[in-house]
Order: sequence, then structure tokens, then C-alpha cells
Amino acid sequence: MALIVQKYGGTSVADLERIEEVAKKIIRRKDEGNNLVVVLSAMAGETDSLINLAKKAAPDPDKREYDALISIGEQKTVTLMSIVLKRMGYRAKSLLGFQVKIVTDKDYTQARILRIDTEVIKREIERGVIVVVAGFQGIDEENNITTLGRGGSDTSAVALAAALGADFCEIYTDVDGVYTTDPNICSKAKRIKRISYDEMLEMARAGAKVLQPRSVEMAKKYGVPVYVKSSFTEGNGTLVTKEDEDMEKEVVSGVTYDRDQAKITVVRVPDKPGIAAKIFTPLSEHNIVVDMIIQNASIDGYTDLTFTVSRKDINQARQIVERVVREINAEGVVVDEDVAKVSIIGVGMVSHSGVAAKMFSALAQEGINIMMISTSEIKISCVIKAKYTELAVSVLHSAFGLDKP
Amino acid sequence: MALIVQKYGGTSVADLERIEEVAKKIIRRKDEGNNLVVVLSAMAGETDSLINLAKKAAPDPDKREYDALISIGEQKTVTLMSIVLKRMGYRAKSLLGFQVKIVTDKDYTQARILRIDTEVIKREIERGVIVVVAGFQGIDEENNITTLGRGGSDTSAVALAAALGADFCEIYTDVDGVYTTDPNICSKAKRIKRISYDEMLEMARAGAKVLQPRSVEMAKKYGVPVYVKSSFTEGNGTLVTKEDEDMEKEVVSGVTYDRDQAKITVVRVPDKPGIAAKIFTPLSEHNIVVDMIIQNASIDGYTDLTFTVSRKDINQARQIVERVVREINAEGVVVDEDVAKVSIIGVGMVSHSGVAAKMFSALAQEGINIMMISTSEIKISCVIKAKYTELAVSVLHSAFGLDKP
Repeated sequence: MALIVQKYGGTSVADLERIEEVAKKIIRRKDEGNNLVVVLSAMAGETDSLINLAKKAAPDPDKREYDALISIGEQKTVTLMSIVLKRMGYRAKSLLGFQVKIVTDKDYTQARILRIDTEVIKREIERGVIVVVAGFQGIDEENNITTLGRGGSDTSAVALAAALGADFCEIYTDVDGVYTTDPNICSKAKRIKRISYDEMLEMARAGAKVLQPRSVEMAKKYGVPVYVKSSFTEGNGTLVTKEDEDMEKEVVSGVTYDRDQAKITVVRVPDKPGIAAKIFTPLSEHNIVVDMIIQNASIDGYTDLTFTVSRKDINQARQIVERVVREINAEGVVVDEDVAKVSIIGVGMVSHSGVAAKMFSALAQEGINIMMISTSEIKISCVIKAKYTELAVSVLHSAFGLDKP
Repeated sequence: MALIVQKYGGTSVADLERIEEVAKKIIRRKDEGNNLVVVLSAMAGETDSLINLAKKAAPDPDKREYDALISIGEQKTVTLMSIVLKRMGYRAKSLLGFQVKIVTDKDYTQARILRIDTEVIKREIERGVIVVVAGFQGIDEENNITTLGRGGSDTSAVALAAALGADFCEIYTDVDGVYTTDPNICSKAKRIKRISYDEMLEMARAGAKVLQPRSVEMAKKYGVPVYVKSSFTEGNGTLVTKEDEDMEKEVVSGVTYDRDQAKITVVRVPDKPGIAAKIFTPLSEHNIVVDMIIQNASIDGYTDLTFTVSRKDINQARQIVERVVREINAEGVVVDEDVAKVSIIGVGMVSHSGVAAKMFSALAQEGINIMMISTSEIKISCVIKAKYTELAVSVLHSAFGLDKP
């Protein structure tokens, strides 16, 4: 008898009919003799409409109240699911963040889970109850409701699996697994059967939307095997797990892209200690996340500094940087919103040489100019003109042998 | 500096615009130098749509889950109100049932408040915060969410006022007070300035919908002065308070009616001990509330037994009673759904004679036949044909001097 934590996303519980379908899936698993903890998101669109309501009430709504408001969606799905499961003759019980005690820090809208009390859930499981837990929400030490950020229900599920010592965690979503690249822009994309935590993490960070990066970090930290599966079709999905020998044979496991990029270049920056801090400190103070940073070698005491931010932050970032430019006597600021980032990811890179060179030449052969490069142990990213995104993805997918069946 | 508990009903917070208006009313009270605890209902219609959702999920939804689902509406209004109040520059904080700790029994859908922890609210009040509490909801000793039944937010407000030792409680609704009768069916109805707890209780029980009877019981028990006022207009409303000399001068304070009545007569019941219990025990086991009961004097060892129930329960009640009829060898069952109850209420009745006679003759003069009569210390009710309801109310309103300005 296994203990399984399942998570169903918003499209999987979008209305009562889909909730019925998911209930049947849950029951099949239960009838196989497993113990089940089910984590649910809000109905698709529900959280967004609560967010809109909050923003109508105030342009910058109080964060404590905002979190208590937008956590309502999950309360609706878990109670409805429990009603349906009970009607079908099964023991079921919904639990909210405060009822489980999913304790987080006080960082409203993007709180981190500190600990989970497992007592209540374990007691219910022992009694044969299917426990249905509200994803996305927790409480801080003072009983304030907090939320875990976009995709937070993934993290709820993995954290519960870790705390309960579950055998594995199943994330049910609207795709049937993790793909070598986005099937919407590359028809040759293939489902990956097994992927390492680190690769999955880099893919999630580099733009693949299938799992919240934080949930992958947590799965890695506690060694929770995670299956990504479709709610709508049967199949084995993708297993996210520890690195093994088979994985290392593949140099590149996936190609990702991110169009939500904008590039800022600060021209002729005096090359003195503390200059970079002067530019990036005010950006971080305004919660602007800087992704890639490149500084050219200094010529005659001046250098160019280029970095990328999310497109939504570009106007604010430009204003901040222009202020700094005057202060530090740089020449000016150039903004380019017409860029995208493509990345190749694979644990095999560590032990293979020439991967970067192969990437650059594959892009060059198609006449795609590379504007910025950044590398990590298992990832290489290039910033290119946005219009080349699909082409670059296809070329790299093919160059690294991902096209073959 | 007074401590005031205010409650706003569903029509008062029906949308964001109305929430803004209520926020302004709250702020005016705060600016006068008062400490404020505000209890809110769900937006008008919201709880009903959640109830419909639950009933679509299962014809007889699990009560624990049902309560956790239908308590969502209040979470929405209290968080939105707090967002608006903070935007307007005031300190405000929403608190849900579990955050205050409004502890109830486990009687889902109609739970009773056992105790309220005042620590959290008092701490916030001391810091100048406007505390916005979700009405209608509580938690039981095991952290399960419970709800208090229709109109439960009135009870939340009065219970909070009692627990906090508030100076008074203001119930804001869509009418500007308690009337001598329903202004919709009797144009001569007048607002009552002061009314005793007992009269208010009888009026609420006899069909006046302005306050939940349970909230009046609680106000009486703890001596909380309650003002019933309109959210939409200014005015002093009605004060519900302890009986005083002025009140006793009025023989009758109000006339109420209740059309939600159905009458069942069990014909030729053998007049033996234990027969009434055989009829009423199975009804109460099915949660059918019996209102008036009349048993005629026994003739030749047989009697007729007549009682009234809510119309929604009539089919189930008939089935139950028909079963009992066969068992006890009564002759049969006659059901009449075409009835209504009219009542006169007044603390002055206790010390005035001839009130009942005056009521009966006023009705008789209009040719209105009385089918059943029941009396309490401060109320006399008659069951009549439904079509005479408006006429009976007008006649009684006039006969007891309530028409005069």
C-alpha cells in the first residue's frame, strides 16, 4: 500500500463536470489500495478574477488582505471535491492551510513553507479517508493566511509529499509530461520519460511552465519522485527524479525559450569598483528581477554593461537606470524589447566538451546573431532577436539529436 | 470613546460600489472617536449561489464540506472591505472565524456559538485598527468550519458585542428599522422607535424578517442594546432594548404575518396516552419543526389533532403522519396549504384584559374565520385562510391603534 500525493491544476477542476472526472481518477487510485492525499488548485480563471476584484478595490491592495481574498478559490474546489467523493461513497475530507497547519513565513503573495504539521492528515489517512488539501495557501505563525505565488499548488503538493514521506507525488496538468521543447512551436518535440531535478529546475527557470521552480527545488531537497501527467489522458508522463547513468548519456535533454525578456545596455560606464552595485541595488529594491548580466572587458577605463529583465518591468527599470547613469557619468542607456532567450539544458554537459561551440555554430548557420550568452553547469542560454525564436528552437532541437524518435 | 459593533447585511455590501459607501459610513463613526468592530455578510446572492453549487455536486451534500464552502462569501467581503479601508488611509484588518476563534458546537449549518476569544480583537482595537469580522461562520473545537444558519451574521454581531462588552450593536440592513407591521402590505405601518427584546423575539419568530431570532435571544441574555438601521439612509432606526414603562403602555406593538404555513389535521385519533408522542417524535427526528399544535376536547374517546409546519416540509410531514395514522388506527389525514398565520405582539398584553377578544371580534367583523389560535404571554396568533392575510393585518393594525401617527 503506497502513500501518494496527487495534485490537480486549475484546468483539471475547471467546473463540476471536470471535478467529477477527477474524482473518478482519484477513486481508481484509492481502489488499487493506495492512501491518497489530493492537492487542488482553484478552478481555472477563479484566482485571476479574485485578483482583478482586489485591484479594483485598490490599485495596490494590502497584501495580507489580498492573500486572504485570493486563497478562496482553493477552498471552493476542495470542498466541492469532498462533497463529490462522499456522494460516490468514499470517505473524504477537505483541509485548508490553517486546518493542516501549513506554516509559512510572512512574505505575503510569495510565502515559503517553513513546516507542515502531519498529525491531522496522518490520522485521517489511517481512518481510510481521502484527504483533499487546498493548494497555494498556508498560514504564518500568527494565523494570517498566506499564498505561495503562481503555481504554488505544485509546491504545496511536493512539500506535503516530503513531510508525509509519501512514496511519490503526481502532478496532473493539461499536458501529458515534460517535453524536449514546446510542442506548440516545434512539432518534433518529444515527451521526456525521466528527467533529473537539476535539469527540470533549469528548464522551469528558463521558461518551461509545466512546474513551479520552487516545487522542483523542494522535490530535489527531499528526494521526492515527481510524476508529471495529464488529467485528461492516461499515460506514464514524465518522472522527475535523481540523476542516473542513463540521463548522463544524453548531452542535452531539452530546449527552452523565454519571450518575456527585455535587454538594457548601459553605455560607457566608468570601470570603477562599486559601479555595478549602484546600478543593481536600486533595481532589486524595486523588486525587479535581473536575469542575465554581461559586462564587456574594459577599454580605456570604460565598459558596457548589459542585462535582461522581464518585459513588464522594462519601463520602471529604464527610469531607475537613467537616474543612475547621470549619477555615475555613464554615456547613456539603450533598451531593446525585441529579444528572446533560448536555452539548452542537460546534465550530460558536465562531462561533454564542445557543447557550447555546437550550439553557437548551429545558430550561426541559420544566420542567427547571438547578443548575450550565459552558462551554468547544465545550461547554456543565448539572447537572440525575438523573431528567430521558433527557428532557433528547431535548429537546436535537431542539432542535439532530440528530433530522432 | 465608545466601542461599537456594526453589522452590514448582504444588500449593503452587494458590490464594490456599495462596499465603498459602507466604508465611508464606517470611517465617519471612527472619526467621531469610536472603536469599531464591523461584521459583514456575504454579497447579496453569493451564499445562495454557493448553496446551488453544493446541491449540484450532491443532492444531499456532506454538511461539514457544505459549511466550509458556503462560508466563502464572507471571506470575500471582509477582505475587500479591509482593502478599501486601508486604501482610504485607515488601519483595518479582516478576521475570519478561525482567526478570532468564534467557537461553536458541531451542529453544521445551524451551529450555536459557545464562546468567543476576545484577545486578538482587543489587541487590534487598542492599536486603533478597525476590525472587520466575517459573519455567519465559526469553528468547532476541532477547527472545522461551521455556519450559524440564515441571518447568522446578526448573531455573530450580537455575540461579539456581548463578548467584547461593546456599548451597543448596530445592525444595518435594507430597511430603516422595525415596523409595526410589514410596510409592503400595510401602508399605515410605522417605524417603532423602541421595542423590548421579548417583543422583538416574538415578532422575529412570528415572521418579521428583520433580525434572526437567535440574535435577539442573545441580545436579551447579555443585555446588548441593538439598533436596527438602514445602510442607505440616515436615521435613528429602532432600538431593541430592555422593557421599560413607556413600552408597557402600548398594548400591542406590532402585527406580523407568516405565509410559510401548512396545516395538517389528524382525524379521529384514539384519545390514549402516548399518541401525541407517536405523531411528533418521528417529525422531529426528520428535523421538521412543528409550530402550532391544537387538540380538541375528546368526544367518545376520539379527538382531532391539528398542527402547522413550514410549507417546504409538508410532503414529508404528510408521509410520516400517514404512516403513524395506520399504526394508531386514526381515521385519516387532512392537509391544508392555503393558510397563513397572523399575530399581534405586545408586552402590554400581560396587564391588559380583553386583548384576545378584541382581536377575534376585529377579524370576525370582516368575515375572517379563525382556524387555530395559540397564545403566549405577549403574543396571540391565529391561523386563517391565506387570501385574508393583508386584510387581517390591516384590520388588526387599525383595531389596536397602530394606525394613528
